[in-house]
Amino acid sequence: MKIALAQLNYHIGNFQDNKEKIIRNIGKAREAGAELVVFSELSVTGYYPHDLLERKEFIEHSQKTIEEIAHHCTGIAALVGGPSINRSPKGKMLYNSAFFLKDGKIESVHHKTLLPTYDVFDEYRHFEPNRNFELIELNGKKLAVTICEDLWYNQPVLSAFGREKLYAVSPMKEYAKQNPDLVINLSASPFSYNQEKLRKDILLNNAHDFNIPIVYVNQVGAQTEIIFDGGSLFIDANGDVVDELAYFEEDFRIIDTENTESKDTLREYEPLEKIHDALILGIKDYFGKMGFKQATLGLSGGIDSAVTVVLAARALGSENVRVLLMPSKYSSEHSITDARDLAENLGIQYEIVNIHEMVDAFDHALSPIFEGLNPDVTEENIQARIRGTLMMALSNKFGHILLNTSNKSEAAVGYGTLYGDMNGGLSVLGDVYKSDVFALARFINRKQEVIPENTIVKPPSAELRPDQKDSDSLPDYDILDKILFNYIELAKSPNEIVRMGFDEETVHMAVRKVNMNEYKRFQTPPILRISSKAFGFGRKMPLVARYPY
Amino acid sequence: MKIALAQLNYHIGNFQDNKEKIIRNIGKAREAGAELVVFSELSVTGYYPHDLLERKEFIEHSQKTIEEIAHHCTGIAALVGGPSINRSPKGKMLYNSAFFLKDGKIESVHHKTLLPTYDVFDEYRHFEPNRNFELIELNGKKLAVTICEDLWYNQPVLSAFGREKLYAVSPMKEYAKQNPDLVINLSASPFSYNQEKLRKDILLNNAHDFNIPIVYVNQVGAQTEIIFDGGSLFIDANGDVVDELAYFEEDFRIIDTENTESKDTLREYEPLEKIHDALILGIKDYFGKMGFKQATLGLSGGIDSAVTVVLAARALGSENVRVLLMPSKYSSEHSITDARDLAENLGIQYEIVNIHEMVDAFDHALSPIFEGLNPDVTEENIQARIRGTLMMALSNKFGHILLNTSNKSEAAVGYGTLYGDMNGGLSVLGDVYKSDVFALARFINRKQEVIPENTIVKPPSAELRPDQKDSDSLPDYDILDKILFNYIELAKSPNEIVRMGFDEETVHMAVRKVNMNEYKRFQTPPILRISSKAFGFGRKMPLVARYPY
Repeated sequence: MKIALAQLNYHIGNFQDNKEKIIRNIGKAREAGAELVVFSELSVTGYYPHDLLERKEFIEHSQKTIEEIAHHCTGIAALVGGPSINRSPKGKMLYNSAFFLKDGKIESVHHKTLLPTYDVFDEYRHFEPNRNFELIELNGKKLAVTICEDLWYNQPVLSAFGREKLYAVSPMKEYAKQNPDLVINLSASPFSYNQEKLRKDILLNNAHDFNIPIVYVNQVGAQTEIIFDGGSLFIDANGDVVDELAYFEEDFRIIDTENTESKDTLREYEPLEKIHDALILGIKDYFGKMGFKQATLGLSGGIDSAVTVVLAARALGSENVRVLLMPSKYSSEHSITDARDLAENLGIQYEIVNIHEMVDAFDHALSPIFEGLNPDVTEENIQARIRGTLMMALSNKFGHILLNTSNKSEAAVGYGTLYGDMNGGLSVLGDVYKSDVFALARFINRKQEVIPENTIVKPPSAELRPDQKDSDSLPDYDILDKILFNYIELAKSPNEIVRMGFDEETVHMAVRKVNMNEYKRFQTPPILRISSKAFGFGRKMPLVARYPY
Repeated sequence: MKIALAQLNYHIGNFQDNKEKIIRNIGKAREAGAELVVFSELSVTGYYPHDLLERKEFIEHSQKTIEEIAHHCTGIAALVGGPSINRSPKGKMLYNSAFFLKDGKIESVHHKTLLPTYDVFDEYRHFEPNRNFELIELNGKKLAVTICEDLWYNQPVLSAFGREKLYAVSPMKEYAKQNPDLVINLSASPFSYNQEKLRKDILLNNAHDFNIPIVYVNQVGAQTEIIFDGGSLFIDANGDVVDELAYFEEDFRIIDTENTESKDTLREYEPLEKIHDALILGIKDYFGKMGFKQATLGLSGGIDSAVTVVLAARALGSENVRVLLMPSKYSSEHSITDARDLAENLGIQYEIVNIHEMVDAFDHALSPIFEGLNPDVTEENIQARIRGTLMMALSNKFGHILLNTSNKSEAAVGYGTLYGDMNGGLSVLGDVYKSDVFALARFINRKQEVIPENTIVKPPSAELRPDQKDSDSLPDYDILDKILFNYIELAKSPNEIVRMGFDEETVHMAVRKVNMNEYKRFQTPPILRISSKAFGFGRKMPLVARYPY
């Protein structure tokens, strides 16, 4: 059987564009002689529409769109993802479904069984789980239709409780009883650099363990924070990859289920390359889907803003990025030179606004109230907030969107000023630890120096008081980041981390800072997610809690 | 049977304080001759601990605490809420449970069956539903232990899909088959002014329909945004209230199940009084549980900051509130007088900082970049951000927490400046529509003028340009707020709202503004929730969506 894998980038709620894209790909598949074309999970709406699913007219619009797509589905069959209404008087109002389209109409509807409710997933809020495991028959072949998590029955993720997560039902087992020729999986599986291998293993193991080939079609493109990486697969019954689609871009492939000779077309990725590509796609789609063109940010001469501006220029084009250099009396000479060199390397527009005038005005206005009190973090924050206000003025005046440049280490320990350098419409590096920001800079410079070497080698500093260095108040980033990764991504307790060999005081200080700063992260911009546990709605912590660990 | 209802205010994750409070109340109940004392849902941890439930040591700490409480439970039985571990290899790691303590040990554990996964509730993320409906026997009586949502099998909430929500299982039916003498319900049910009656009706109907008396013990106190109102009940088998505990404060009552003579002890609440009390409790608990004492805010002479400062003074004491007046050249004379009068009425410390100096500094610094361009919203936002920076400077220098004064109408349509007047650690009025802010001001002034009359009667204005009025860019609030309520709280579509008789253009403009400003609300402070649908994590909308309705 010839099957087309349509790996596309959808726009949530933009039924018109999504419909046209799907219909175009049905036509393309038909012309190429495919018998079936497979789209990804919730393709009609885009994944994930969140509480738009609670709006009746949104669901009606979705249904109408699927019916229109069905009309175009002649001479070929299609599997299209979308919400469907639960007609039973009990349970949630909707199913997360795959619509099997054939002969110009909806032939059957197949629902998702396993609804993820962890990390960024919240599907039980809107969907009722499937309890009916019927196969599709097409041109003499029996197909099992599954949706994303349905293949994740047995998650080999070690939870903090020391056992694997298991669902009560295994859709693969239910379908396997009926001896399907093929399993189709419509997916919306986001990129995560530290779970990439796990995901592939799960897919391959499913094919191998049940001895059934699998066609896996993943969504590609960023939906605000969440970056879907594509990488759709055709896996044979031995659990070997026959064909693999591109990462971080739309792709389309015709596979022949009878031909399972492995193709070695996919190039190898360098370490950090996927993170680099993911972040660029994240920026590009945020702007594209929001209808924005131009970005702005403050260039400090430091490594975070340097990496951010390179990624922005690569995502949007140098002509669409404009930066401000905002030195104060604490800025070192090389900071300005480094920032200027970078802007010139990239060919982006830059302007310099010295902040001393505003600093003086605030100092003077506040002097009657602050009389007799020593300067402290207040005055440092005023500088950061003046810069934040200048950036937003540029954004307001010219319609540029401010990119936030904070990294994950800073976000974790609260090393940043709320309403100052924490401003922005989108946080590019908020899920990238400082050590990885350095590695990204090296990756960016691997062929030629884009980021000035001095920016990479000098000790990190916020430059908010004389001779300030990050290391004055924080442990070295290579130590700190390992502690944070164990605490945040791996959910280890501080005591466990200490037993791994880290200094006890440092571990407790880091963890205390993470918990103390929940309130700051509550107000940060959306953070592009590249790990298995990013700050944002995938990690919901109570604010008023008194719990140190 | 004599039963003690312990309606307490818990601190999430503060096992030490929660434990001592519970043990103290067990002692009090024992002394009063009670056979059983009932605490509320997840009382040991506080409701809701969110992803702290994913940390192993948090669960171990919780278990240890329950065991320690059990040791103190002699000569009386107790029902205490807390998470328990799911020993089955399948399903979520935890149950949301009630621990039945007797004779110094945990006698049995009873789990919650219906796990809410809508609005602010997200329990399926952490908990496995109960499937075992065993009664407790105590001193010859048979008791059915239910937890909160278990009584909400049939939710008479009209969904956008035009039918009621029904769960697949009805715990009340399962228990009723075994003829219990009494149903106990451990609850954590938040206040919502427009669902208050619904909640009581559901409780009374359950008792009436199954002909079983119900003892309902609710949590009291605010957990960041969510305000739990208490109001615990003893309801007889006819569905009549026998006894009702206080609202918005801790309370303790001994009831006798044999004595169902109704007590008319609870005073009547005036309209708006509960909203007033809820917001005060929200402020008080945010500060108390975070370990803060003092609040600050900017007093503009307008109604939002006036109502906020009164509520803050009532929650924290006038001596713990300090305000800034920050006039600009666009501030009217009466704004300053009104603000000053209010501060003096309340006896709170105030200072005046004119912002013109900072405005000039920004204008001057930006003039080379903005040359030849007309003033627009950019310059208005700069003023708001200067004020925001001044407020944060006060907050940083003196440790006062900034209260945000935006109301729900503004938050809805984006009438506010991000990193300016949208700053704050807590939003007091972010779930109160502007019309209700006026009503609250009248309520506050009902006995004597606290808020200057002029603040209430003058047309609302942001005073960011000459003669600016809210009504220049927004419909009248009494119209706008009705449209917003129908759209947000009642999930009606714009077309439905137009059919109700509202002007078509106004409806579409309002709805468009709501959807356009999702990005601003993403970065707002936590908002005290008083309605059935507040902005915040109970209303999760995708940012990059292109969907106008």
